[in-house]
Amino acid sequence: MQLGVVGLGRMGGNIARRLARAGHSCVVWDRSTSAVGELAGEGMAGAADLADLVSKLAAPRAVWVMLPAGAPTEETVNALAGLMSPGDIIIDGGNTFYKDDIRRAETLEPQGIHYVDVGTSGGVWGLERGYCMMIGGTKEAVDHLDPILAALAPGKGNIPLTPGREGRDPRAEQGYIHAGPAGAGHFVKMIHNGIEYGLMQAYAEGFEILKNKDSTALPANERYTLNMPDIAEVWRRGSVVSSWLLDLTSIALAKDEQLSAFPGEVADSGEGRWTVMAAVEEAVSAEVLTAALYTRFRSRQDHTFGEKMLSAMRFQFGGHTEFKMDK
Amino acid sequence: MQLGVVGLGRMGGNIARRLARAGHSCVVWDRSTSAVGELAGEGMAGAADLADLVSKLAAPRAVWVMLPAGAPTEETVNALAGLMSPGDIIIDGGNTFYKDDIRRAETLEPQGIHYVDVGTSGGVWGLERGYCMMIGGTKEAVDHLDPILAALAPGKGNIPLTPGREGRDPRAEQGYIHAGPAGAGHFVKMIHNGIEYGLMQAYAEGFEILKNKDSTALPANERYTLNMPDIAEVWRRGSVVSSWLLDLTSIALAKDEQLSAFPGEVADSGEGRWTVMAAVEEAVSAEVLTAALYTRFRSRQDHTFGEKMLSAMRFQFGGHTEFKMDK
Amino acid sequence: MQLGVVGLGRMGGNIARRLARAGHSCVVWDRSTSAVGELAGEGMAGAADLADLVSKLAAPRAVWVMLPAGAPTEETVNALAGLMSPGDIIIDGGNTFYKDDIRRAETLEPQGIHYVDVGTSGGVWGLERGYCMMIGGTKEAVDHLDPILAALAPGKGNIPLTPGREGRDPRAEQGYIHAGPAGAGHFVKMIHNGIEYGLMQAYAEGFEILKNKDSTALPANERYTLNMPDIAEVWRRGSVVSSWLLDLTSIALAKDEQLSAFPGEVADSGEGRWTVMAAVEEAVSAEVLTAALYTRFRSRQDHTFGEKMLSAMRFQFGGHTEFKMDK
Amino acid sequence: MQLGVVGLGRMGGNIARRLARAGHSCVVWDRSTSAVGELAGEGMAGAADLADLVSKLAAPRAVWVMLPAGAPTEETVNALAGLMSPGDIIIDGGNTFYKDDIRRAETLEPQGIHYVDVGTSGGVWGLERGYCMMIGGTKEAVDHLDPILAALAPGKGNIPLTPGREGRDPRAEQGYIHAGPAGAGHFVKMIHNGIEYGLMQAYAEGFEILKNKDSTALPANERYTLNMPDIAEVWRRGSVVSSWLLDLTSIALAKDEQLSAFPGEVADSGEGRWTVMAAVEEAVSAEVLTAALYTRFRSRQDHTFGEKMLSAMRFQFGGHTEFKMDK
Repeated sequence: MQLGVVGLGRMGGNIARRLARAGHSCVVWDRSTSAVGELAGEGMAGAADLADLVSKLAAPRAVWVMLPAGAPTEETVNALAGLMSPGDIIIDGGNTFYKDDIRRAETLEPQGIHYVDVGTSGGVWGLERGYCMMIGGTKEAVDHLDPILAALAPGKGNIPLTPGREGRDPRAEQGYIHAGPAGAGHFVKMIHNGIEYGLMQAYAEGFEILKNKDSTALPANERYTLNMPDIAEVWRRGSVVSSWLLDLTSIALAKDEQLSAFPGEVADSGEGRWTVMAAVEEAVSAEVLTAALYTRFRSRQDHTFGEKMLSAMRFQFGGHTEFKMDK
Repeated sequence: MQLGVVGLGRMGGNIARRLARAGHSCVVWDRSTSAVGELAGEGMAGAADLADLVSKLAAPRAVWVMLPAGAPTEETVNALAGLMSPGDIIIDGGNTFYKDDIRRAETLEPQGIHYVDVGTSGGVWGLERGYCMMIGGTKEAVDHLDPILAALAPGKGNIPLTPGREGRDPRAEQGYIHAGPAGAGHFVKMIHNGIEYGLMQAYAEGFEILKNKDSTALPANERYTLNMPDIAEVWRRGSVVSSWLLDLTSIALAKDEQLSAFPGEVADSGEGRWTVMAAVEEAVSAEVLTAALYTRFRSRQDHTFGEKMLSAMRFQFGGHTEFKMDK
Repeated sequence: MQLGVVGLGRMGGNIARRLARAGHSCVVWDRSTSAVGELAGEGMAGAADLADLVSKLAAPRAVWVMLPAGAPTEETVNALAGLMSPGDIIIDGGNTFYKDDIRRAETLEPQGIHYVDVGTSGGVWGLERGYCMMIGGTKEAVDHLDPILAALAPGKGNIPLTPGREGRDPRAEQGYIHAGPAGAGHFVKMIHNGIEYGLMQAYAEGFEILKNKDSTALPANERYTLNMPDIAEVWRRGSVVSSWLLDLTSIALAKDEQLSAFPGEVADSGEGRWTVMAAVEEAVSAEVLTAALYTRFRSRQDHTFGEKMLSAMRFQFGGHTEFKMDK
Repeated sequence: MQLGVVGLGRMGGNIARRLARAGHSCVVWDRSTSAVGELAGEGMAGAADLADLVSKLAAPRAVWVMLPAGAPTEETVNALAGLMSPGDIIIDGGNTFYKDDIRRAETLEPQGIHYVDVGTSGGVWGLERGYCMMIGGTKEAVDHLDPILAALAPGKGNIPLTPGREGRDPRAEQGYIHAGPAGAGHFVKMIHNGIEYGLMQAYAEGFEILKNKDSTALPANERYTLNMPDIAEVWRRGSVVSSWLLDLTSIALAKDEQLSAFPGEVADSGEGRWTVMAAVEEAVSAEVLTAALYTRFRSRQDHTFGEKMLSAMRFQFGGHTEFKMDK
């Protein structure tokens, strides 16, 4: 089927490519004409602007917006809404905050335009591996998009089937689900990312304890110099902690066991923060997901005011001076 | 090759079985004669007692002890040491604290007996999937045991090879590593379990936020009733959080999406606690691994004294009575 | 000077009383006529409704609203705004979210009405001890209210002066500060409460470790049965952890060392949650304040879905059944 | 009464001074002859060595050891044990791990020598404020030492009495308690320090959120530039978070509101670590005390291996490069 794709960065471009490979027909646009040209060169229809893109699609139209969350997505959704007709579908495949989805769907509903939010996981591996998708929107719209979604999804591949799923939604086994009404897709994807933070931090802490086991602060007969790449690799096979993140860790450690290319300042995206806020709103004690986020905050600091305050108190009550402190 | 196996519980029995399938010859003993009889019925040599077991092995002997950590293992290791000869090998495949390994190896070294500790992951799935093993001990002993270890390990299977591992220890790709001197095997396994706690808790928190998204404490248009089994299943395919633990979660949720068979009191084993203590000894900020352990502690409590104290303070300064509090 | 007081609950009533004792003149109103009657019986002027209250005040009027945050305060502020004149002052002394203050001040500014937010600490002890106040608003309005604020504040009392404060705002030593523009008062009070959560939790955890030191899970010669009331009391004198919260703890423990009147389900108010959200917005790693909040969340649960999930995973990978688990 | 004091650093010297002021007779020794000379110059009896010190005391002797925990204390206790007689008392006033106290008391018991452990809080303020003391040992020994302990303790001072303590141990109101058998004093002091970490961290986090409220990452109308010294000062008066630590914070901030003299690398002593280990042994969920310790660990690091690993994973799955990341 036909799909408009707006935003041809790494994610958007590869989504169009994966659809084209599956025989779907994409009309693409990006504010970068070279990005449009690149995909046009691969045989897709390039658009000159949003209006041109809409005009090249047959009703009911579906346009996938794959742009940074916030203003870029918001403005594009609004512009598309002005160009589209009742029965058309706007898909936000980015990392939008789910409350914005709820608001947009409520705004577009009187116009008869469907708003579908797709939380998309897969990153740079998606073109080959497929995209795991969590989708929010009306049943009507999501069903209409099914050919597109099925083509983007990873499919069953060689992943073992889960016993006992007879009678449950078969789309989950293909790698996509209709999670609920507008916003539900991004909400589930947001929690996915929150979990991702927690998983990553669990590995990071474990490997740090392994790494520091050669510390001279320990008794000499309790020190080990452990081989990080081999440990990551061995855990991929038959251990309880095997995972795709561990596969990636093993790749990174095989390349450089000191990870010296990485300065250690870790960015965080909105999803981790929103996950904590959702936990607070629901009164869920999300200790691990929150600690994982906070660790990233701290990684980007030199010394915090709070730490200076600790030293100041220690100086006041105990005369401790941290100046000559040996680490 | 020949191996004595002491302790024929779920783990020990299956280890003997997996070795027998690979053509190795096991002499087995357990204080339960029926356990010995069961394996004897499968064609293995049963022993009447430890001395009998040792006598049925040709030097240099190797005996795998697969018993609960602490007194059962300690007493068996000591008894074996009294029965064995220089050049023999005692293997502790249980969940021993690594400092006990260090002590035992130092004690046995003057007798010429090798002590090898094997941290073994794989649980009830090991017989079929193979056991992921982290091994501590002398190079001489570990090399001698290689045929046994290779047979127990999962092997490469259909798990993709990690690029860039050329020149690194190929045993890691088979699912076992020689981690270092005595204790190193159990130390690495201990951290493996610490990470396992963190990963499990990350999933648990994420799913709890998903589950509680239908709470009536939230605004009506921000509530979703989400499908736990489908979410677990979809994340297995192409998402960043795919893992073996997620596979297991999907199985459990497919069977009962309320998980009502589980009361929610979660046990912890020594490894989780030891991991925290190792972090403290090394001054590693292991927020997530520790929070995961503490969550289990809390899950086994009704109300804590600390919580009563919070209420008592609130009553004192604000006149807040928690009695009629609505949850 | 003259002040209108709306909302005559424990806080509002005592604020009026403390002002009256200091010679100020209060016009009071509450939707409960008996509450109005009670203060009228103490010599204050009761109003029949908001309009009556406003009409009994001379311009420039000042009305202190002391109502629950959210709708009750919002509606009252709006109603007062419709009754008041340029130059008048509306004071919100409740626990309003500071972003609501910012919005209200922006709304009232074109009308020439000043909006002042006062974060008020002191609880049931305020009538005698005075109220610690953190104030947001224009300099003009806050200065105008100074006689009122000075009367409500605790004053220097017998608390030792802080050396080195020469040249700094003397109001801080009296127990009130002008923190900044609208919202700044409630923001500082919000963080005050966040810290309060953290302090309380630190004591709670420490006392719980003391309390559980008689656990039979510990080696017999490492068990102590410790005296909670005496420990709380001794720390009040010369120790680093002495505080007002500890004073209150000592009172509670002296009365009942088991704290058996308290079920252990601990409520949380908005401030604790907003503090975590502020930390997330600022990318501050507020581990302790967040853990303190989460502990309260958990205290109000029986068993969580997350904990059931942990058990379910343990059952899947290890065959562990938590049913017969000994705590 | 007569007391030997060994170790004349800041704590030991001031303990001797406070006792001398109260009319007690101290025999003092330190490996630094100048330290001995200084106190001798103040009228105390200096000893030439441990044997000389013991010989200058009348039986039953009591010697207060005030040395760094570990080897210095251990060696001195052992040396004194060799010089003393049945009925004598060795007091360890340092920061010894309580399990060492238990062991020492068990070792000395057959010799008839009493071992008393005194957890001492008060730091540099103790000479004037008195020392808050938590004491472990036999009733006989602790009762014998009462005149010494009463003189060192702060006494009731002007701290309000706790209502309802009638019939409880009056020593607690004087600032010292007999906590239990050997080790109990240091155990209670250890938890005191654990709580201290938690309290300090709660203030540190709260002030950091206040401090960062002027961040340009926030919307312009939600920024405040808050006055740290005034906020610390105002909370000392009538607020729920008033404490001695807050008094000290106010002093530090009054002197330099940027705390620029403090680099922000915060040391930790054994007690914080032992508190976490005690919590783990007792299965107490000590989230806040542990997070406070971990924050200090992290404060002394540049970038951790764990953080580099997070970046490495992000690079692998998303192509995120943290190199050009803007903080």
